[in-house]
Amino acid sequence: MVGAGQLARMTCQAAISLGIGFRVLAASPADSAALICADVVTGDYTDSGDLLAFARGCDVVTFDHEHVPGGHLAELEKAAAGQAGPAVRPAAAALRYTQDKLAMRERLRALGVPCPRYAPVTDLAGVRARAEEWGWPVVLKAVTGGYDGRGVWVCGTPEEAAAVLAHPVAVFAEEHVAFRAELATLVARSPYGQAAAYPVVQTVQRGGVCHEVLAPAPGLPPGLAADAQRMALELTGELGVTGLLAVELFAAEAGLLVNELAMRPHNSGHWTIEGARTSQFEQHLRAVLDLPLGDPRMAAPQAVMANVFGGPSGPGVSPGSGVSPRAGAAPSPDIFARYEHVMAADPGVKVHFYGKQARPGRKIGHVTVLGGDVAGLRERAVRAASYLATGNGESA
Amino acid sequence: MVGAGQLARMTCQAAISLGIGFRVLAASPADSAALICADVVTGDYTDSGDLLAFARGCDVVTFDHEHVPGGHLAELEKAAAGQAGPAVRPAAAALRYTQDKLAMRERLRALGVPCPRYAPVTDLAGVRARAEEWGWPVVLKAVTGGYDGRGVWVCGTPEEAAAVLAHPVAVFAEEHVAFRAELATLVARSPYGQAAAYPVVQTVQRGGVCHEVLAPAPGLPPGLAADAQRMALELTGELGVTGLLAVELFAAEAGLLVNELAMRPHNSGHWTIEGARTSQFEQHLRAVLDLPLGDPRMAAPQAVMANVFGGPSGPGVSPGSGVSPRAGAAPSPDIFARYEHVMAADPGVKVHFYGKQARPGRKIGHVTVLGGDVAGLRERAVRAASYLATGNGESA
Repeated sequence: MVGAGQLARMTCQAAISLGIGFRVLAASPADSAALICADVVTGDYTDSGDLLAFARGCDVVTFDHEHVPGGHLAELEKAAAGQAGPAVRPAAAALRYTQDKLAMRERLRALGVPCPRYAPVTDLAGVRARAEEWGWPVVLKAVTGGYDGRGVWVCGTPEEAAAVLAHPVAVFAEEHVAFRAELATLVARSPYGQAAAYPVVQTVQRGGVCHEVLAPAPGLPPGLAADAQRMALELTGELGVTGLLAVELFAAEAGLLVNELAMRPHNSGHWTIEGARTSQFEQHLRAVLDLPLGDPRMAAPQAVMANVFGGPSGPGVSPGSGVSPRAGAAPSPDIFARYEHVMAADPGVKVHFYGKQARPGRKIGHVTVLGGDVAGLRERAVRAASYLATGNGESA
Repeated sequence: MVGAGQLARMTCQAAISLGIGFRVLAASPADSAALICADVVTGDYTDSGDLLAFARGCDVVTFDHEHVPGGHLAELEKAAAGQAGPAVRPAAAALRYTQDKLAMRERLRALGVPCPRYAPVTDLAGVRARAEEWGWPVVLKAVTGGYDGRGVWVCGTPEEAAAVLAHPVAVFAEEHVAFRAELATLVARSPYGQAAAYPVVQTVQRGGVCHEVLAPAPGLPPGLAADAQRMALELTGELGVTGLLAVELFAAEAGLLVNELAMRPHNSGHWTIEGARTSQFEQHLRAVLDLPLGDPRMAAPQAVMANVFGGPSGPGVSPGSGVSPRAGAAPSPDIFARYEHVMAADPGVKVHFYGKQARPGRKIGHVTVLGGDVAGLRERAVRAASYLATGNGESA
């Protein structure tokens, strides 16, 4: 797996169960997955030499992010075609639509998939023209390189738009959708063509960043859920996805609109570790290895996941305080004090920490609770996540 | 964790979720946990220098087996008492009762815990004298070093007993219990004194080796289950156990009799990974780190686990066939063919492979299925395990 963030870390755990050799390409030995993986290659995924050296000896290469340059992916695929390299899954031709958001929009439009209105823009006059048609605010999105709320700017005024355009980043404009809820649907497809869909979830976002995931999405009409799953399953085929496809959706007045695509394990699917019969991480492995897919059904009536964010007083890794030479793998004494509180208060909460330095706003872990009552579960999950983030029960 | 078998491997997976630094002492880099752990020290646990060097820098030392010499444990504890070493959990004084089965029997008798009748024996005359009282067969057990059916001999005749006594192994004699079922109860206790009990399970054994675990034990009267849990919880206190205590029991005509004790994650608790809110591996970590314990309740009405054994045609690791430099972590192409079959036939079966060489009769993995109908679950689990072991649906 190229990249060694928390997605690779949790995929590594799934690979251990299946007894599958798992190697990560890490930028640093302190990366989340590099701290815990037995087979770490340190290198730069933007360096094609590093990437090819990493891939040597692998059967399949897959990704924890969408930032590997297209030219490098083409090189990997060329080696694979000559039987001298691993299969690349998902393929560059599919990954392109997660790397270039404008290309994604064009492709979805051609496929007749409902999306927010969008248009290429190069200057403020272009943004103003869109705003006249759609109204303010206008959303500006970086064509490439964005993730997790980065590369997305909701501009309420021409001045705000001008400030964004002042950056040397190619952007395009999108209408601001007044959605009722944000949903996500996660599906997997294997090279053989088998597909499986997880229940559609609701994501609760703040500032473009996911804070909670409610699985299944509460109150979602079954017809709409089925529409979302069907749309995602069709997209896997149309785009040639192998592995996971996460589709982030707006549930708007006019129906479902596709917001974003990702072709990897996704934050909206972390609940599946405990909440589904097959976790998204195992499912991704099974899909990219062309094994039969696992049962995506829920293991409980309702699951709620809440992200844990680093804060100024947040927990995380105190270098040198660890119990192992790879000290980053060990939580600081601080986190143990928080564990004592959270675990005593709620013996059913499942804690996942990523071994990451706590910087303000950075996702450093998540918690999941399972049960029946979504309101009660949300309260438990948010309380635990907040306490882990800040040392008290207040929201981070 | 001293030892790097599959118990350490699965404990490592739990440590990753909690963000806890986890180091194993492995005899070889090819050990099950050494293949996947990021922090491996290779050494010999019977060498006190290796053991102390391994423990340096750890906060807590715990065990994947009961074979560390008592003198070495005392040295570790002396260092801990002088603040120069990690806490040893469970302590040597508790571990002693898993290392010396005769001492265990004496202690349990002193505590009034029901056990099979037993007696020290040194020669055939002693065995014959016991057999006159108890009848044949008589069970001979190695005082130390036994596990997983090794070190236990069911002798139907004086000749069989003589053959056992011919070995230079200290043994004692036990009556052969005509049990209705074999049960196991798994509890955890933290240094703080908190305790938690998992549902009592039935183990299905052949030749002294566990083949299946049914959780909870089907048809067990609730009063008997409560008795078993209470007995195990009391034992943790009496013996000073920190971490897990597994108690193997015979359900006999006369009631419950204690067969064996283990103070570590136990094969009879593998079902908890998917089948309980807190896995035994996480629970052991929480207990030895003196964190509040997790919810031990079931995540489904019924769970069935079946072990996968290596056979002459069994799967496992073909050296050199792996996808990583640590090739032992990768299943052979053979196992992929078996995965295809098993996963296609049953998308709900959870597979755990340990990365171990398949020698006949060796536990190389396990499968777990969750649901409601114990007969149906057993059929699914046994079929999957048999296919993974032998490449066909016949029992291994």
